[in-house]
Amino acid sequence: MKSINSVAVVGGTHGNEFSGIYLLRQWQQNPQRITRDTFTTQTLFANPKAHEENKRYVDSDLNRQFAVEDLANPELANYEQSRAKVMNEILGPKGNAKTDFIIDLHNTTSNMGPTLIVLQSDDFNIKMGAYVKARMPEAVVVFEDQIPLADHKFVSSIAAQGVIVEIGPQPQSVIRQDVLDWMDAMTGHILDFVDLYNQGELPALPETYEAYRYTETLKLPENAKGERIGMVHKHVQDNDFKPLHGGDPIFTLFDGTEIHWEGHYEAYPHFINEAAYYDNNLAMSLAEKITVTL
Amino acid sequence: MKSINSVAVVGGTHGNEFSGIYLLRQWQQNPQRITRDTFTTQTLFANPKAHEENKRYVDSDLNRQFAVEDLANPELANYEQSRAKVMNEILGPKGNAKTDFIIDLHNTTSNMGPTLIVLQSDDFNIKMGAYVKARMPEAVVVFEDQIPLADHKFVSSIAAQGVIVEIGPQPQSVIRQDVLDWMDAMTGHILDFVDLYNQGELPALPETYEAYRYTETLKLPENAKGERIGMVHKHVQDNDFKPLHGGDPIFTLFDGTEIHWEGHYEAYPHFINEAAYYDNNLAMSLAEKITVTL
Repeated sequence: MKSINSVAVVGGTHGNEFSGIYLLRQWQQNPQRITRDTFTTQTLFANPKAHEENKRYVDSDLNRQFAVEDLANPELANYEQSRAKVMNEILGPKGNAKTDFIIDLHNTTSNMGPTLIVLQSDDFNIKMGAYVKARMPEAVVVFEDQIPLADHKFVSSIAAQGVIVEIGPQPQSVIRQDVLDWMDAMTGHILDFVDLYNQGELPALPETYEAYRYTETLKLPENAKGERIGMVHKHVQDNDFKPLHGGDPIFTLFDGTEIHWEGHYEAYPHFINEAAYYDNNLAMSLAEKITVTL
Repeated sequence: MKSINSVAVVGGTHGNEFSGIYLLRQWQQNPQRITRDTFTTQTLFANPKAHEENKRYVDSDLNRQFAVEDLANPELANYEQSRAKVMNEILGPKGNAKTDFIIDLHNTTSNMGPTLIVLQSDDFNIKMGAYVKARMPEAVVVFEDQIPLADHKFVSSIAAQGVIVEIGPQPQSVIRQDVLDWMDAMTGHILDFVDLYNQGELPALPETYEAYRYTETLKLPENAKGERIGMVHKHVQDNDFKPLHGGDPIFTLFDGTEIHWEGHYEAYPHFINEAAYYDNNLAMSLAEKITVTL
């Protein structure tokens, strides 16, 4: 892999996830906090209009607009679709990007703690996970490498390398100090890692570490008309990254009926009851636990 | 006090506080759950348009529109101001209301647990607090009786008696089972109490109980331009109804400076870092702890 010469830190991709937006402001006033010797760092406030309206998005989810074919489609012209094309100009173009590495900052209402979501399981990302966990033991690493990076529709898929920093629990439209501090710390460790990786001077890292690999997404219970008829079971609520087995209660219908999970593997729910996912009636993501070997 | 013949249970006064809205739907299908022998019960979905838009309000906060002079002012004609006039027709008119008692259902992003907010410290409300706490030991009772009921601008001030059921923590636009169950249980206990009070058949209640009385509201730190420059201190976050003393850290500025509270009494913060209060840059409410005597 060629070295990382150009890094972009993106905040406010979702307008009601405040931590990244507030950190960008601080870093713009004190750029040395995100500057390292071996690369340039730029910041980008992705969706200022959604933030102004205190919403996740104005017309459609900005973090689902970066499929190559959508970026090339002139008929996709709503606010976020237009904004995606502009961001692709600034940071990309996707497939041949002037930016080498993107860190996209997000909050979740789910109890996920400080989570690093990586989109590829190559040497760079595997070592980044090890480095961040060594510096920040409460950090969780999730591999969303079920499809090639080019096929992801995320902001962080514009560059050849990209990650998502996803911190919770934080309600929409609020700043929590613990969550802000976690995001600041994790971003700092990632930038330190890139600098050391560029220099070939990584410290000794553990030979293996525990992480998660995305497997599937579960929907909230619906009736035949597509109306929501139940909620996440109280035994699952807040238990992000705790094991779930076949037969465990997973949903409670509004009539009191308990629904049990019918899966056949040890699953690790995350993004449990994330507010933003109600748009699509999603209940949670599942992962399997993996041991990553360096 | 004359007996309570007519009760209204109001949900969805704020469109992104989901628990009341979902409970109303369940109760409308099973009206016996909110019916008692000595009074009639009606339900009212206060702000359907805000819920459709998944927002607290469309134009202005519906739960601040019930001042008598505002209800009489024909120039106040935005959506919530109009909706308030319609609700005052249905439940009121304020000052001479056909509804005797209103229960208004709310969620908060703050860690307040199941909280009963009463607006008057008369025999009815004092005994209600004792009854609800006896049935639900985790319940908290807050007296917001610093002004006469008629001067409150809340939905629940339309009738001669009214309370707010305020349950958290719950992010906006989400259903949590624990919060839904608390709201269902507290509303049931209130309805039971009214029925027993009407019959003069209240069970033995403790002679005293612990409660809180609202004292003041604190703003988030601002600069001279009115811009937010800090956040709730991490030692205060989530510590609703825990004591705060003069000199305790209360805010952290974004530059790292800690701000200490300068009050001269033992205060009990609540509505700490409530998302909806950012509109007015409010940080929290304070109360003093009181012993209520029956």
